[in-house]
Amino acid sequence: MLIEIDFNSDEALYLQLRNQIILGIATNTFHEGDVLPSVRTLADEIGINMHTVNKAYSVLRSEGYVKVDRRRGAVISVSEAKEEHLRQIRNILSSTVLEAVCRNVSKEELHKMIDDIYKEYGF
Amino acid sequence: MLIEIDFNSDEALYLQLRNQIILGIATNTFHEGDVLPSVRTLADEIGINMHTVNKAYSVLRSEGYVKVDRRRGAVISVSEAKEEHLRQIRNILSSTVLEAVCRNVSKEELHKMIDDIYKEYGF
Repeated sequence: MLIEIDFNSDEALYLQLRNQIILGIATNTFHEGDVLPSVRTLADEIGINMHTVNKAYSVLRSEGYVKVDRRRGAVISVSEAKEEHLRQIRNILSSTVLEAVCRNVSKEELHKMIDDIYKEYGF
Repeated sequence: MLIEIDFNSDEALYLQLRNQIILGIATNTFHEGDVLPSVRTLADEIGINMHTVNKAYSVLRSEGYVKVDRRRGAVISVSEAKEEHLRQIRNILSSTVLEAVCRNVSKEELHKMIDDIYKEYGF
């Protein structure tokens, strides 16, 4: 598993780890049912604290990307888009729109950014 | 100034405060050069800790929405969209796209959400 953590980034390490795992799911590196490394293994591999890995896993669990199986550990299990997930995505977009308006970034530019991001990832 | 803080929300209070001020700028409640209430006044008004207001103000400053004037205090001063701001907006959109892909939310749905958000705010 290739997890890239940027120790110079302002973004919290657990969030970077969460984002990398979501990236992995979106790009089909991780599939439904895949078992993630144990907290200890991943912490050792990346060179971060076990608490940090634990926090990332529990955020992913609370967001419905991972289930914790008593025997196998953290397992990828993406719940389908429910009202709650759509609301979450909409909230993030909503605050992004407000930031764009403050900066005089147009609606068209936002649409174009989204298209570019899809292209970049090859979706 | 109407700041709505939801004490039951999972979102950190300083972030809610930051977001409300960005909302105010986007919707023309706050204008360039407006002076924000002092940290103490706002903390008392909302009923939150002064540290929380301070944190919100310093995040807004580091993001280029507010300048701190030694005599007047925190003043709205939105820096134009620079490469750095565009990259920031793009990063947020990028992680939102990945979340949408994981949840099988289509690109078209994302575009529609953005249009709806613009309509909702009357931009």
